[in-house]
Amino acid sequence: MTTSPHELDAADPLASFRDRFVIDDDLVAYLDGNSLGRLPRATLERLAVFVREEWGGRLIRGWADSWVDLPVTVGDELGAALLGAAAGQTVVADSTSVCIYKLLHAASGLRPGRDEIVIDATNFPTDRYLVDSVAAARGMTVRWLEPDLVENVTIEVLAAALGDRTAVVVLSHVDYRSGTLLDLPGLTAAVHAAGAVVIWDLCHSAGAVPIELDAAEVDFAVGCTYKYVNGGPGAPAYVYVARRHLAEAHQPITGWWSAADLFAMSDTYESSPTIRRMLSGTPPVAGLLAVQEGVRLIAEAGVEAVRTKSEALTAYAIELVDEIGLEIVTPRDPALRGSHVTVRHPDARAVADRLVERGVVPDFREPDLIRLGLSPLTTSFAEVSAAARILAEVVAPIG
Amino acid sequence: MTTSPHELDAADPLASFRDRFVIDDDLVAYLDGNSLGRLPRATLERLAVFVREEWGGRLIRGWADSWVDLPVTVGDELGAALLGAAAGQTVVADSTSVCIYKLLHAASGLRPGRDEIVIDATNFPTDRYLVDSVAAARGMTVRWLEPDLVENVTIEVLAAALGDRTAVVVLSHVDYRSGTLLDLPGLTAAVHAAGAVVIWDLCHSAGAVPIELDAAEVDFAVGCTYKYVNGGPGAPAYVYVARRHLAEAHQPITGWWSAADLFAMSDTYESSPTIRRMLSGTPPVAGLLAVQEGVRLIAEAGVEAVRTKSEALTAYAIELVDEIGLEIVTPRDPALRGSHVTVRHPDARAVADRLVERGVVPDFREPDLIRLGLSPLTTSFAEVSAAARILAEVVAPIG
Repeated sequence: MTTSPHELDAADPLASFRDRFVIDDDLVAYLDGNSLGRLPRATLERLAVFVREEWGGRLIRGWADSWVDLPVTVGDELGAALLGAAAGQTVVADSTSVCIYKLLHAASGLRPGRDEIVIDATNFPTDRYLVDSVAAARGMTVRWLEPDLVENVTIEVLAAALGDRTAVVVLSHVDYRSGTLLDLPGLTAAVHAAGAVVIWDLCHSAGAVPIELDAAEVDFAVGCTYKYVNGGPGAPAYVYVARRHLAEAHQPITGWWSAADLFAMSDTYESSPTIRRMLSGTPPVAGLLAVQEGVRLIAEAGVEAVRTKSEALTAYAIELVDEIGLEIVTPRDPALRGSHVTVRHPDARAVADRLVERGVVPDFREPDLIRLGLSPLTTSFAEVSAAARILAEVVAPIG
Repeated sequence: MTTSPHELDAADPLASFRDRFVIDDDLVAYLDGNSLGRLPRATLERLAVFVREEWGGRLIRGWADSWVDLPVTVGDELGAALLGAAAGQTVVADSTSVCIYKLLHAASGLRPGRDEIVIDATNFPTDRYLVDSVAAARGMTVRWLEPDLVENVTIEVLAAALGDRTAVVVLSHVDYRSGTLLDLPGLTAAVHAAGAVVIWDLCHSAGAVPIELDAAEVDFAVGCTYKYVNGGPGAPAYVYVARRHLAEAHQPITGWWSAADLFAMSDTYESSPTIRRMLSGTPPVAGLLAVQEGVRLIAEAGVEAVRTKSEALTAYAIELVDEIGLEIVTPRDPALRGSHVTVRHPDARAVADRLVERGVVPDFREPDLIRLGLSPLTTSFAEVSAAARILAEVVAPIG
């Protein structure tokens, strides 16, 4: 017999954060905050003020007022609150894909005598596609790790692939399908021991899992802001470049926003000596402000408290799915998982469709996976309980 | 004696469009709509509904509802209304800088035996910087045109630089400093006669000047949406790829949004056969919707009517600046200019600062230029008259 979800919610120190979000949809349970987070009330207000008063009222003067520094100021806030990154190493800019592309070039340039980029076959498609593209453009080779989906990239799996040809390793902190949480400090140390540099994709971890990039001596990192950071659909991504690499980190999309003097419009290009060198063109101001509000909510809750609730939510979901008797591919050790729980079912698409019909929104992933995303600031235990009850009803006739 | 501005406004068939924008700032005259356009009332409403009801209420379901197609549907609307582009050739995505980068690679790949990219030294910095970057990465050479700022790139200037090494030519339709409007059809034909392809930067023309990309057989084009399209600060840019080049147009930022099947998340990358291949990562939905509203206002007014008013506004501004006795660097033939008028003054920065103090917002450009941006849907003749009166007072003591 499981604990009552209402008791769990009553005992949850972060329960009141749910009221900081707009929740007036028609859903029984929203378990897709790991794809698109909910709308913070502060963001609703901030965007209204921005559009009406800043764009509408200040017009071009808004750039000088504050917008021009937002990529760095929001980057610094995000780095401090979510990434364990000291100021001056994080900037918010462009989509995740564009950011990964820039980092792949910057990282590869640090190891000119080496010609291999290592990535795992379980990594998110955009990471894999971009590694292929950049490797081809630079005359490098891609070395594929083929880990088990659930165990994912262990130090043993990685070590077998590293060598004196390894220039760059690209890893995702939490696997987008299984939810497996990799050993970021351990794997980073293994990459460094081989003389290579690492790019960590934090899309499925940042905002739900504590991260200490500076302490782990990570080289580069990237992540999106529309999942646990609740920045909204298509909100801009961020890049982290360790200070020790900044002077030698060259990315090829050298637009005017990456230049040493943005408004000098000089004849020759000189890249900014700061993290601004990772920018390219004019950044999306509305998106930056939404990211800032999302970051501030997590900072207020505290990443450690967020993690504690995430572990409780995933444990509770695993317990309820076990009662239904479905296969779970997410690690049962809380230290080895992020904030989503993935169920395997041969008719996963049909199950997901029926859940949506019943007001439970999960996430289907080809070919047979259903992700239950548990977003610590917005998901209640009552929601998980209601979703599990409906899941049991939905799978019963499907078998 | 000039005509009364009130008579000109009374006779302006587009005068009522000014009421379609939020205008409640503290300004006497906003002459910087060529840097950041005003806020359309429709956009204010559309963004409020989007944030509250679509993101807040539909959550992840918004992607399937409509968002996933926005880059193409807004691109098609923009192409039809502003660019003379049939459907399937325009997509809204990323910043202008990122879009130029992609097009430079795509265009260079079409002429593998040729190794020169031609660009003029008067072009906007981001275009020049990116040409340098892409040329270096591809082992190509940059051939610089050095035209007179005002006369700018004529067919004679360009023809002297073209040859059998020319792969790509990059030109800006309207010069960002002088306001000179280039002969897009004639220059495009000259590029083609030399066996090369052209990329047109439409940032300072689209939305104010009629453009017929298909009729002129343009190869590639790019432009931003926060100037005359009034999409807001950092709104996403667009790329145009002529249908005949689509199958061979390869850009290197091969993120998941450029793949043939976005959600298949397959092991190997296959680029979309459609214009979606120019996308990379998740697009900014709020920005896309703002672009759509801006495009619809111009479509409703009609680009020809917009151009007629633009010519009248610039002629009126030139007349008033002549009365003050300041040097004008913008061509006096309306067929040779876009929608801003540029004044040269040795103390341009001080003049611009004093104008802003007096409630007139122009645009200063190093070292000695002041741009008066005249945005046809929002600038009134009364605004131009008031600005000129204050300009006369401001420059009198400066001399």
